[in-house]
Parts: sequence; C-alpha cells; structure tokens
Amino acid sequence: MPHIRLPEGLPGITGPMTAYPDTARHLKGLAEAVLRGPSSLSTAERELIATHVSSGNECHFCTQSHAAAARELYGSASEVVNLVLSDMQTAPITEKMKALLNIAGKVRRDGRTVTTGDVERAREEGADDQAIHDTVLIAAAFCMFNRYVDGLATGSPAEPEAYKEAGVRLASKGYLGNTVSR
Amino acid sequence: MPHIRLPEGLPGITGPMTAYPDTARHLKGLAEAVLRGPSSLSTAERELIATHVSSGNECHFCTQSHAAAARELYGSASEVVNLVLSDMQTAPITEKMKALLNIAGKVRRDGRTVTTGDVERAREEGADDQAIHDTVLIAAAFCMFNRYVDGLATGSPAEPEAYKEAGVRLASKGYLGNTVSR
Repeated sequence: MPHIRLPEGLPGITGPMTAYPDTARHLKGLAEAVLRGPSSLSTAERELIATHVSSGNECHFCTQSHAAAARELYGSASEVVNLVLSDMQTAPITEKMKALLNIAGKVRRDGRTVTTGDVERAREEGADDQAIHDTVLIAAAFCMFNRYVDGLATGSPAEPEAYKEAGVRLASKGYLGNTVSR
Repeated sequence: MPHIRLPEGLPGITGPMTAYPDTARHLKGLAEAVLRGPSSLSTAERELIATHVSSGNECHFCTQSHAAAARELYGSASEVVNLVLSDMQTAPITEKMKALLNIAGKVRRDGRTVTTGDVERAREEGADDQAIHDTVLIAAAFCMFNRYVDGLATGSPAEPEAYKEAGVRLASKGYLGNTVSR
C-alpha cells in the first residue's frame, strides 16, 4: 500500500508522476536530459550507471526498469547488465566504465567520498569532463528517483520479466512520454 | 579544487549549472516546482525541509543557501531555522512539521524506512497527501542536489553570512533565474 493515494495499476514512479504532474514534468525532463541528451557516454553506458546506483540503493522498481532499458540498448551484449548487477569488478566492461561506476557508487553513498584519485583513474581510462559530470549527476539523480519511489512505498511487480516491455519503450522512446517538458 | 573544470567564482551548484545548462534547466525547474509551486506547505516550511535534509547530508553549500532562504521566508520567526538545525525535536515548530521532518530524515537515509506509523502521525497532525508527497520529493531531490554539489567537489564560502544575499534572492525571486524552464 502506498503511503498516499495514487492511481491504481501504475507501478513504481509512474503512480506519483501521474498524480503529481507539476513536478513530474521536470523529473521526466531531467531523466531525458541525463540519460538521452548529448553526452560523451552512450545511452547504454548511462542506463548501466542508473541501474548500478539503483541496485546499490536496493530500489527494485528502478533497478529492474533501467536494467531492462540497458539490456535493450546493449543489444547482443545485454548479458553485461546481469554481470554488472552481480559484480561490477569482474564484469566484462571497459576500465573506463569500471572507474565511472566506482565514482557513481561513491556518489550514491556520499558525494564527499569521491577522491581526486578516483577522478584521475577515470581520466586515465579515457573519461572526459562531460563523462565525469554526467556520471555524478546520473548517480545523484537516481538517489532522488529511488527515494521518491521507495519513500512513498509505491508497488512494483516482483518478476524481472514484467519490466521487459518498459525497457523496450524507454530504450526506443525515452522519458518524455506524452508530457511536454519544454 | 572541483573534480572537473568549472567557471571560477561560482560557488556550489551554480558552477556546474552554468557549465552544463542542458541539465540545469530541469534542475532549476524541479527546484522551483517543489519549493515554490502549488503545495499545502508554505514556502518557508518547504525551505526548512530542504535545509534539514541538506544538513543531515552535511552539504555545506546547500544547508547554508536554503537556511538563508528559509530565514527570509520565516521573517520575524527566522530564529526557528537555527533551532531546527541544532535540534529539530526541541525546536519551536508545529507537531505537523516535526512529523514531516521525521519523514524527510528517513527518506534522506533510505526511502524504505518510512513507516505507515510515520505517515499516520503526520496525517493526525494535519498533513494531507500533497504535504506528504511534497516532503518525500523535497527530501529525495535534496539527496540529489547535495550529491551533485559534493560529488563534483565544488567550492563554497565558509561563513554563513556569505549566503544572506542568495537567501534574499531565492526567497523573493525563486529558482528559475534567467533560465527558461518550459
């Protein structure tokens, strides 16, 4: 049972975003900008960061939704998503992505724990300022989305399969849906 | 030293928001919507929630900026802001605000820790669905803003006095500045 009255049958963030459109407009616009807007990171890499952070925060709805979107975007390499969820350190991703996921994980816990060394390591592996900025903002934004979803006790389907359709939609159409965000 | 190149002389979130306007547009729009848009909570109460959460996350820039805005909005009762910063439980605020700050503090740590009892207590003290929603979203949003500011190691003035002017501006003009957010 959610903590407030929300429309029925809308899982996770879709319930409060439908009930509270004045703020949803900006939440959707932000998701589209950080995950689909111009960046030196691919959309697949950005969805993987979102998935990693949501998993660290144990937000079931966000983890499953963005894992599904990341799988679509990774295409034939989609297995990488499960491997990152199980252990980022041993997953078959680039050293650059490992360095960025390390930064994202630190931002998730406390932004102040990101060190100059963490950032230098990412730069040595090819991350530019935009990639570091986007990693920090994606991690920060999912600390918000995860808390919005779980702080209102929204419901979500248990089975990962239930998120496949949403993943296809998010991968192909993005986050703006029918909402005019500008 | 910030972790990425940012314009000089712009403290806290103003540096990355100036350097990365595509995402800043939505961050400003969200801040305006949650802190200044329609709500059953006053703007002063919402700035107090933002201050309480930023203080819990030990984000110096956000705490001082929003404390300054809250002081302006509380006017002759501005001392309440320092008293909440020092100990929310004994501060001269309504039982409704104490119940909402309790929810905000739990969302800050982990959204899943908010209980039905926490929400019932807020309702008994007069909080409606909108107030509970807005409290959860403000707390979640400041978990993002705090991490964006600190995860990039942005600089900020040490003295609380340095934030008074920003507080006056945020209290009177809000968050959109010169940015077109829609």
